Amino acid sequence: MFEAAEVGRLLSKEEFKRLDFEVHQALLELQRELRESNHALIVIVSGVEGAGKGEVVDRLNRWFDSRDVQTHAYWDETDEEQERPRYWRFWRDLPAKGTISVMFGSWYTRPLVDAAFDKINDAQLEHELNRVRELERTLSDSGAITIKLWFHLPQDVQKSRLEQEAKVSKFKKSPLLEEFSKKYQKFVRVSENSLRLTDTGFAPWHIIEATDARYRDITTGKLIVSRLQSEFAKEKSNGTVNSQDLDESAEPAFVIDSESKELTVLDSVDLSLELTEKEYESQIVQLQRKLHDLAWKMQAAKRSTVLVFEGWDAGGKGSAIRRITTAIDARLYRVIPIAAPTDEELAHHYLWRFWRHIPRAGYITMYDRSWYGRVLVERVEGFAQPHEWLRSYQEINNFEEHLADRGIQLAKFWIHIGKDEQLKRFKEREIDPRKQHKITEEDWRNRERWDEYKVAVNDMVAHTSTGYAPWTLVSGNDKKNARVQILQTICNRLEECLQI
Amino acid sequence: MFEAAEVGRLLSKEEFKRLDFEVHQALLELQRELRESNHALIVIVSGVEGAGKGEVVDRLNRWFDSRDVQTHAYWDETDEEQERPRYWRFWRDLPAKGTISVMFGSWYTRPLVDAAFDKINDAQLEHELNRVRELERTLSDSGAITIKLWFHLPQDVQKSRLEQEAKVSKFKKSPLLEEFSKKYQKFVRVSENSLRLTDTGFAPWHIIEATDARYRDITTGKLIVSRLQSEFAKEKSNGTVNSQDLDESAEPAFVIDSESKELTVLDSVDLSLELTEKEYESQIVQLQRKLHDLAWKMQAAKRSTVLVFEGWDAGGKGSAIRRITTAIDARLYRVIPIAAPTDEELAHHYLWRFWRHIPRAGYITMYDRSWYGRVLVERVEGFAQPHEWLRSYQEINNFEEHLADRGIQLAKFWIHIGKDEQLKRFKEREIDPRKQHKITEEDWRNRERWDEYKVAVNDMVAHTSTGYAPWTLVSGNDKKNARVQILQTICNRLEECLQI
Repeated sequence: MFEAAEVGRLLSKEEFKRLDFEVHQALLELQRELRESNHALIVIVSGVEGAGKGEVVDRLNRWFDSRDVQTHAYWDETDEEQERPRYWRFWRDLPAKGTISVMFGSWYTRPLVDAAFDKINDAQLEHELNRVRELERTLSDSGAITIKLWFHLPQDVQKSRLEQEAKVSKFKKSPLLEEFSKKYQKFVRVSENSLRLTDTGFAPWHIIEATDARYRDITTGKLIVSRLQSEFAKEKSNGTVNSQDLDESAEPAFVIDSESKELTVLDSVDLSLELTEKEYESQIVQLQRKLHDLAWKMQAAKRSTVLVFEGWDAGGKGSAIRRITTAIDARLYRVIPIAAPTDEELAHHYLWRFWRHIPRAGYITMYDRSWYGRVLVERVEGFAQPHEWLRSYQEINNFEEHLADRGIQLAKFWIHIGKDEQLKRFKEREIDPRKQHKITEEDWRNRERWDEYKVAVNDMVAHTSTGYAPWTLVSGNDKKNARVQILQTICNRLEECLQI
Repeated sequence: MFEAAEVGRLLSKEEFKRLDFEVHQALLELQRELRESNHALIVIVSGVEGAGKGEVVDRLNRWFDSRDVQTHAYWDETDEEQERPRYWRFWRDLPAKGTISVMFGSWYTRPLVDAAFDKINDAQLEHELNRVRELERTLSDSGAITIKLWFHLPQDVQKSRLEQEAKVSKFKKSPLLEEFSKKYQKFVRVSENSLRLTDTGFAPWHIIEATDARYRDITTGKLIVSRLQSEFAKEKSNGTVNSQDLDESAEPAFVIDSESKELTVLDSVDLSLELTEKEYESQIVQLQRKLHDLAWKMQAAKRSTVLVFEGWDAGGKGSAIRRITTAIDARLYRVIPIAAPTDEELAHHYLWRFWRHIPRAGYITMYDRSWYGRVLVERVEGFAQPHEWLRSYQEINNFEEHLADRGIQLAKFWIHIGKDEQLKRFKEREIDPRKQHKITEEDWRNRERWDEYKVAVNDMVAHTSTGYAPWTLVSGNDKKNARVQILQTICNRLEECLQI
C-alpha cells in the first residue's frame, strides 16, 4: 500500500509558486459553491508522525476563506468529553451544511494508536473501524463530503526528521514521536489494515507522499479541488440538487494543470536490471525444478495458489506464464485468460466470473489479466464510472481476503517495461509474421493512454497491495530478468506458506 | 425486536383465497418487469426452526413463473464447496440479471448456527456479519434487490410444533430441530444481534410472524410485491434505467388491498389495566422515593441514564415525565422537549441535535419525543423518503449502541392509548380553558393517520427494540397505571445497572 508513496515525488519552488496560486483560487471558488450547497466538507488530516500534518492544516487555513472553516484537533480529551460516549466530541464538531471542518486527528486516531501500542487486539480494532465506517456512511448519506488524507514517510526519512527535530527544538515535538519511530513497522501494519477496511467508495483514502513539503501541500490542495469538482458535477448531472444557486456557476470547472509527467510507483522500478544468457539459464532451470516440487507439496498440503498477471501490452505476460506452466505438472494448474466477458458473465457482478474459477484445495490458478481490469482498463476507458471503480478497491480487497482466509496463497504481478521498449516490441511484432496476430489497433490506442494507465496502476497498488495479497512490480525490459523475478517470488511465497 | 412478531396475526380461509390470487397475479407481472430490467432478485428465507420456511419456498415457487427462478438450499456442503472459500457457493448461485434466486438458508445460516452453539464468539460473529454486509452492499451496488425474510415463532408455539412433528413423522424433521428449541433463548439473542447488525437501508430485514401459515405466506408475497414495486418506481423517477422496455408498463402499479385493520404490536398491549386511587397513591409514592435514591446512587457511580418518551398525542407523556422529575433532585436531570429543529440543527445530520444533549457521567436526560421522529412523523408525513427512514433504523441502533457502550442506561417508552380514549381526551382539552393550548389542528390531523402510525410504531419496535435499549409499551388508558408502569420500569433498570 504505502510503497506507492515512497517514490521520491517533489516539486520545484517555481512550480510550487504557480500551483499554490492556482489551488488557492480554485479552493476559494469551490468554497463559494459549497456555501450555497447542501454539502458539508470534512477534511481528515492523518498519517505518520513527522509528516508535517500541522503544516498542512496551516496551509489549508490559509487557502480557505476562514469564515466557514473550523479546525479541530484531537489529542487530549476535556472533562466534558471524557464523561460522554467517545463519539460525542466528533458529533459536536461536525460541520453544518455549507461549512468546512478540518480535522487534525480524527475518529481514526485513538483506534490506531491503541492498536499500535497493543491496547486493543485485532478484533477490537475491527469493531472500532466498523463504527468509523458506519459514521462515514451516515455522513455521506446525509450529504457530507469526507476527504481522508494519509501522509506517509519512508522509515529512513521519518527517522532523520526525528533526529533533526530533537536537535533544533523541543517546542513542536510531539511526545509520541520517539515511540512511533521505534514502532514503525507495527504502526505501518496497523495503518495498512485500517486504511484497507475503511477505504470505501463514499469515503476513499488518499495516500500522499510527504517527504517533500511542497509536493505534499500542492497534492493535498489538488485532491480537494478535484473531489469537490467531481461531487458538484455529479450532483448537477443527477439533477437532485435542492439548492437554488448552483446553476449560476455553469462555467466549466476550474482545472489545475497536472505536471506533465507525475512520478508514480512504476518510476521506482529499476528497468536496467539484466541477466546474461548464462545467468538466466542456470537460474531459470533451478527455479523451475524448485517450483515443480513446491507445487506437489502444496497439493499434498491441500493449499491452493492464485497468481495474477497484469502488465503493459507486449510486457511479456504470456511468455512468463509459460515458464511457470512448463515447470508445474499439468494436472495441478489452470490458466484463465481473461478476454471479453460472456453474456452470462455480463449478466452478473463483475467479480462473479473470477469467483467461478477459484481453485480447489491443493491446486493453482493463474489469471492472465484479472479483476484488476475494473480499475485499469475500465477506469481509463471510462467503461466504469468513478463511483464504480472507486468502490471496487474495497470489493477487490474483500474478495482477496475471502481467498486468503481459506488459506489460498495470492501473488500479483505487474510486469513493467519502458515506453520505448514497448514501441520496440510493437514494431518487432508488426514485422514478424509469427507475431503479427499479437499486435492490434487496440494496443496502439492503449499506448496513447500510457500516462493515464500509470496513474491507474499507482492507485491500484496504493489501494490493493496488502499483506495477504501483495503486488510485485516486475522489472521487465529484460524478459529474462522478469521471468526469474516472477519465479523467484512465487517460490519464496510457497516456501513461506509451507514453512520450508 | 421479535415482540413485534408475537401479536397473534392470522388470516381467514376466504381472505387467504382472495389475496393468494392477487399476490400471484402481481408477482407474475412484476417478474415480467424484472426480466427486462437490470436487476436480479434474491429472496432470503430464514428464521427459527419449525416456522415453515420450506412451505414458504414451495409457495414462492408456485407463485413465480419457474423459468427464471432457482431455489438454493444450504445445509450441507459438497466436496467441491468444502475445498474452496466459503462464499464460493454463494457467488456461484447468484442470479443473473432478470432472474430470481430463492435462498433457503443463506450466508446467514452458518454464522448464526455457529454462534448459537458457541463455536464462534461475539467478535467472530461480528466479523462474519461484516462480510455479509459487505456482500449485500456489493450486490446492491450492482443492482441486485435483496429481500430478507425472517420467520419468527414464539417459544411455546415452536415447542408444540416440535412435539407435534415428532409424533406425526420423522420424514420432514430437521435433525437440528430438537437442539434449537432447547437453545431457544440463546438463538433468539444471537439472531436479534445479527439482524440488527445487518439491517441496512439497502437490504433491510422483514420479521414475519409465522404462527398462522396463511398470514405468513400472504405477508411474504405482499412484501415482495411492494419492495419490487418501490424499486421499479424509484428507478423510473430517477431516469437512470438502462433497460428499454420499462416504459411499456406505465400503467399504475398493482396494489394489493391491505386488510383494513392489520394487527400490530400495539394490539398486544392490554389497555384494560387500571389502578384504584388508593393503589396508585401508595405505589407512586414508594416508587418515587426509590427513584430519588437510585438517581443519587447512579450519580455516585458515575452512570448516566437516557429516557425516551414517545406516544400518541394526549397519551400523557408530559404528566408521566412530571412524576419522574418530581422524584429526582433537580441537579441530576434535564428534560429535552423536541420541537421543530433550529436553523443550526437543520443544517446538520438529524441525529446531531440529540447527540448534543447526551448527559455527562452520572446524570439523567429525558427526551420528550426524540430521534424516533425520523421513523414516525417523518415517515408518516412523507418528510423523509423511504430510503432515508429505512436506513435510519441502523443509524439509530448504532447511535444507541454508542451510548450503551459508554455505560449509559437507555429506556424507551411508547405510551399507548385507545383511539376512543384519545378522542375523549381531545374533547376534554377543547373544553377546559387550562388545557386548550394543548390541542391543535395538528393533533386532529395526526389522528386521521392513526393506522399508519400504528404500522410505523410496529416497525420501529421490530427494528430498534434491542437488548441494550428495549422499548416498553405502556398501557396508558389509565394514566395512573401508565405512570406506575414507567416508574417501575425505570427503577428496575437502574437497580439492575447498580446490581442492587
